[in-house]
Amino acid sequence: MELYVERGFDETTVAAIAKRAGLTERTFFRHYADKREVLFAGAALLQQLFVTTVTDAPPDMPPVEAAMTGVVAGGVLIQERRAFACQRYEIIAANTELQERELIKLASLSAALAATLRRRGVGEHPADLAAEVAIAVFKIGFERWVADPVHLDLPQLMRESLDELRVVTADTETGRPTTVAAS
Amino acid sequence: MELYVERGFDETTVAAIAKRAGLTERTFFRHYADKREVLFAGAALLQQLFVTTVTDAPPDMPPVEAAMTGVVAGGVLIQERRAFACQRYEIIAANTELQERELIKLASLSAALAATLRRRGVGEHPADLAAEVAIAVFKIGFERWVADPVHLDLPQLMRESLDELRVVTADTETGRPTTVAAS
Repeated sequence: MELYVERGFDETTVAAIAKRAGLTERTFFRHYADKREVLFAGAALLQQLFVTTVTDAPPDMPPVEAAMTGVVAGGVLIQERRAFACQRYEIIAANTELQERELIKLASLSAALAATLRRRGVGEHPADLAAEVAIAVFKIGFERWVADPVHLDLPQLMRESLDELRVVTADTETGRPTTVAAS
Repeated sequence: MELYVERGFDETTVAAIAKRAGLTERTFFRHYADKREVLFAGAALLQQLFVTTVTDAPPDMPPVEAAMTGVVAGGVLIQERRAFACQRYEIIAANTELQERELIKLASLSAALAATLRRRGVGEHPADLAAEVAIAVFKIGFERWVADPVHLDLPQLMRESLDELRVVTADTETGRPTTVAAS
């Protein structure tokens, strides 16, 4: 990770990473399929956390609130690893290929959330929409947190992002929300 | 396009495409950088349509409604080319690499929408959130339309998806929306 920051992702070889970590290349490849995996190995854990948390949410919880329990749990986890998360973000922001990989990760997380909501009895399209909303809140809350020098609370920022999403999604600027289009 | 459906994207060569279209390979490459471009050349047009439509929306229109004018205009355009859109969707659904490219396209459209909203005076985070909501509605409305044999109206499906998003985003299942988290 340090090497990615120092030299750039593309310029860092597995040999250099292994050397810095005091490992052989062979040991490195026992842990990671490639050097991108150093940055994306946590995705599976995050997805599992999303799924188990949303599965365990109270049965009568509305779709987006249920999905939010998953992303907020993810936020707690990420916050505990702030140094890693910030370095990782910086590395990804500097590399187009990694940004694309990050988009794919978010799409997979959204699909996993939607599938979990459907298992809770939420309809297909509402599940997709709720998952997309939760992932948008996850992404934008995280971007706000990572850019913030005063270490705001990430789960709180995610909740605030959802509140803000409700405001911008409302039909009028006064925040009057409705289920009928203004047309 | 027909060849992509018949043979699969990976198995189709530029030589075969050019032959089917009655062109030389050289002429093909004058129009498209590579064979993926046949599927993604429309993205720039769509983005331009989003940007000009949202720019021209009434100044007092709330962020998501303004963003929606762009994606609905996109829906009108896509609907006029249903045969192409459905074939394209089928090809992309069958190929992981193309799906990734599609995710990148949607992320670019979202960024363009957010930038346009900011130029309308919308704050940074509300603009990002409104753009993400509009793109989610665009994507899910489109998926519903493309899967539907009875040719529902795409702009209408997008509007309905937004209404549905408002319902799932509400704090309670009765659809009571609020700007304060239920916690």
